[in-house]
Amino acid sequence: MAEYTLYGFAQSGNSYRAALMLNLVGADWEPRFVDFFAGETRSAEYRENVNEMGEAPVLAFGDTKISQSGVILDFLAEKFGKFRWESEDERREILRWLLFDNQKCAGYMGPLRFLRTILKAGETDVVQFLHGRMTQSQEVLDKHLTGRDWIVGNRPTIADISMTGYFYWPEEVGYDLAAYPGIAAWLDRVKTLPGWEHPYEILPGHPLPEKA
Amino acid sequence: MAEYTLYGFAQSGNSYRAALMLNLVGADWEPRFVDFFAGETRSAEYRENVNEMGEAPVLAFGDTKISQSGVILDFLAEKFGKFRWESEDERREILRWLLFDNQKCAGYMGPLRFLRTILKAGETDVVQFLHGRMTQSQEVLDKHLTGRDWIVGNRPTIADISMTGYFYWPEEVGYDLAAYPGIAAWLDRVKTLPGWEHPYEILPGHPLPEKA
Repeated sequence: MAEYTLYGFAQSGNSYRAALMLNLVGADWEPRFVDFFAGETRSAEYRENVNEMGEAPVLAFGDTKISQSGVILDFLAEKFGKFRWESEDERREILRWLLFDNQKCAGYMGPLRFLRTILKAGETDVVQFLHGRMTQSQEVLDKHLTGRDWIVGNRPTIADISMTGYFYWPEEVGYDLAAYPGIAAWLDRVKTLPGWEHPYEILPGHPLPEKA
Repeated sequence: MAEYTLYGFAQSGNSYRAALMLNLVGADWEPRFVDFFAGETRSAEYRENVNEMGEAPVLAFGDTKISQSGVILDFLAEKFGKFRWESEDERREILRWLLFDNQKCAGYMGPLRFLRTILKAGETDVVQFLHGRMTQSQEVLDKHLTGRDWIVGNRPTIADISMTGYFYWPEEVGYDLAAYPGIAAWLDRVKTLPGWEHPYEILPGHPLPEKA
């Protein structure tokens, strides 16, 4: 049995962040597939024994379970001494981007991709609302990444690993990567880190089964 | 001039968190009104000189400006030694709720209140979408707060101060506080902390000017 078990699934950009981090720090880990589309995260059993917030990912080791991808990244950065802050000011600067990401990047891109690609909802008002919000955030990030290689400081940190969440799916989320040269170059840079894999390679659950 | 200046406005639950914290730790602070509804946070000047993310609140002192309410709370908790974690595990447990709050509580309640009360958008599909998502998060929080007084540990921390964000506006957000006895009792508990004020008392900008 591996040292770390990651509850997650390939369709989840939030799970991807944690899986990518486990790869990049060289952890001994294995995935535990969460059957999100069959309602597993909404089940009483999951909420009682895995995560009261009803979400993936969850990192399990020994008797401990940690949820929220940002917390998992923080824990692994300390544990492995990689991709971490070097001062309290830098810890907070990383936190600033983790919060922006969770609310305004992944927080919109995740539901947007779910509606567009998984539910095939079409261009409804909700899709357009999420798209507009996402665009504002992507403009902020692209500007920030213009003229710099990494989100915080001059090296990759968990802020970068978190932010990748849904960005490797431009077609599925429905955004134009070519419109954001700063983001595009940064995504290529993240790809060069040893251990990088695409979300569909790193976790089980892709492709989704065809509906009958 | 006060030691701390908080860029914010009364209509912003995100600003409220930071203002409440400044009150509760007894900081020497003054507000700097941000004219959000006139587009100030979208202006090039604001993004260049105050916050590249184009958001309020921002805490300013000396030559430093800090944005993201969760980062401001983290900074003030360390600075004043109040409402803070006592271990790295507890720091991460607080972070877990900060992330959940920013994405799934304030992250939905803020836009929902904006659409319902400020834009008076009516019960559109977008409003219903946000309402549904918010309800799921409120159920998680209410369950968590049933049988416990505070979100993390057995004393108030920045997790509680953050989570108050939009919760003192049940009518404006459009949620039924009576349906969540755990949340209702906890909100009353937060109110007893010395220095507590309602968001409309603590920051300038209420009421909004009538439109011509």
